Amino acid sequence: MNRKTIMLGVAGDSASGKTTISKGIVEALGPENVTAICCDHYHRYNREQRRQMKLSALHPDCNYIQIMEQHFRLLREGQPILKPVYNHATGDFDAPDYIEPTKFIIVEGLLPFHTRLMRLCFDTKVYLDPPDSLRRAWKIKRDTTKRGYTEEQVLRSMAGREDVAPRFIHPQRGYADMIVRFYPPNEDGDPGDNHLNTQLVLLPTLPHPDLTDVLEHGGGGYDAGGYDPGRAAGRPAMRLDLARYEGRPADFLEIDGSVCPEKAEELMAIIRGHLPPNAGLDESRLGRYQFGHEERRSYPLALTQLLIAYQLILTAEQIAHSTDRAVATTL
Amino acid sequence: MNRKTIMLGVAGDSASGKTTISKGIVEALGPENVTAICCDHYHRYNREQRRQMKLSALHPDCNYIQIMEQHFRLLREGQPILKPVYNHATGDFDAPDYIEPTKFIIVEGLLPFHTRLMRLCFDTKVYLDPPDSLRRAWKIKRDTTKRGYTEEQVLRSMAGREDVAPRFIHPQRGYADMIVRFYPPNEDGDPGDNHLNTQLVLLPTLPHPDLTDVLEHGGGGYDAGGYDPGRAAGRPAMRLDLARYEGRPADFLEIDGSVCPEKAEELMAIIRGHLPPNAGLDESRLGRYQFGHEERRSYPLALTQLLIAYQLILTAEQIAHSTDRAVATTL
Repeated sequence: MNRKTIMLGVAGDSASGKTTISKGIVEALGPENVTAICCDHYHRYNREQRRQMKLSALHPDCNYIQIMEQHFRLLREGQPILKPVYNHATGDFDAPDYIEPTKFIIVEGLLPFHTRLMRLCFDTKVYLDPPDSLRRAWKIKRDTTKRGYTEEQVLRSMAGREDVAPRFIHPQRGYADMIVRFYPPNEDGDPGDNHLNTQLVLLPTLPHPDLTDVLEHGGGGYDAGGYDPGRAAGRPAMRLDLARYEGRPADFLEIDGSVCPEKAEELMAIIRGHLPPNAGLDESRLGRYQFGHEERRSYPLALTQLLIAYQLILTAEQIAHSTDRAVATTL
Repeated sequence: MNRKTIMLGVAGDSASGKTTISKGIVEALGPENVTAICCDHYHRYNREQRRQMKLSALHPDCNYIQIMEQHFRLLREGQPILKPVYNHATGDFDAPDYIEPTKFIIVEGLLPFHTRLMRLCFDTKVYLDPPDSLRRAWKIKRDTTKRGYTEEQVLRSMAGREDVAPRFIHPQRGYADMIVRFYPPNEDGDPGDNHLNTQLVLLPTLPHPDLTDVLEHGGGGYDAGGYDPGRAAGRPAMRLDLARYEGRPADFLEIDGSVCPEKAEELMAIIRGHLPPNAGLDESRLGRYQFGHEERRSYPLALTQLLIAYQLILTAEQIAHSTDRAVATTL
């Protein structure tokens, strides 16, 4: 495959935060450099047909998997695609979208890592894994406010996919280079709260920036602030631990929502230090999310996005400086 | 390009007989072996958008030419495509069609030979070139009976494309291996008449079967029948002449609608003799066309389709027997 673009995949169940993660990365890298697409439009059947066939929209049999593979490959080769467009409002298909790839491509969706050929197209694979209670609250909020469903419809839709998600969505976690888990500091945490904690599992399938000097020896921004009353007093707000993730060695980076801005900025500066000076990353766009009509900023989110953007920029650098064409174009 | 299929392109203006030609070839080769698609669905805009932009649907700017190139290449490589579907009734787009290529592929439409990359995909290129008066009569008949337009709408639509067709459709004639011209024996001929004459221009870009022994020396089935009162008495009903077509040497095969069945069958037998014995061609399906609610058979049409099918079968043979992979997969 003669690769021309750098591809990020963001997988996760419905309302796991894929669009929020992607949006900040697009804005930080510059919308003119990033093509972001959602791969949940490749349905074989419209809503009425699925209803008659009693098939969930997220079941692979209900999607043109081979065309998704083909389109990911074409995007990686820098070629345009005619992407199908599924309309949630009508439950049917609209005119397709002509997508002309740019330097960076973000593909987000429910099943981007479903097959080997799909996975081979991505330079960086991220899986979003919030606790199900948080994800359900997010989904109800989004689908009732932005997609025009009633709460009852959303609950019914979630009930209908309860067996499909564990079979097809969750296993994709095993292929991710980075697993992102936003979670409330305690069970009754407000799901929209910008003080959500974040756990990042950094698998050694990619060379993540070395943060051990800063974090492993207690340099992680102790914060005496009281956002997390349940937290053990004196535990650092950012922590790096070596542990196993489903049997595989991994770095666990924990960032509490209560981290103080100075410490978070310090860590961001260290990551930035690993990037080329001309990376052209607008960090001010990282960490932003919509809370009702208000835009807020979360440092755990900003750090997550920065660590993802880091991989994309690094890959771009490697390709640009590689004299070995085989390396530059390799999968 | 690692080719896997054998591709026929059939170009021509609206209502020039593309579907009629293709249908008989599909049936003769077996629908399970042939994928027939129309490439007139790759519009960038729906009817309303085109109206606002004052852009004709057949103008290349109004079509995803690059995606057509890509899809032709994918089909040639044996890969499936998700073909856009334009709905003439609504003037908008429907759910796309999943096309899984078979051994033979027929692409018919207004612009299949528009770019070099498109042309490179075809093993055989046919251009349909009926006299404009006949084509207009066919178009009015078809669009008012099968597509639900009024005659006034059809006339207006034809007026709107009068400058576009000469710029983009007609020049494709220059890339064809075979140019087919059905024409009435005299000016006031009934356009649906099965006694239409046919002129086939066989360009030496392909190895057409040698018919000189049969036809050039007066063996072409003289017919004393009176279907063509204007015809010079004693002129053979099938004739082969060497002449120039737009400056290039070509064989001109003329078949009068009045040709007697025995003579036409004789010529078909000779062409069949050039084909492998296991070609699996159902010749009984050739030459059929719809006249109102009635199915009729035309020998000039049957012979035209047979000469086209001949090319497809021959290419399949060459690929099957080629030990040189480079030849088999070459453009």
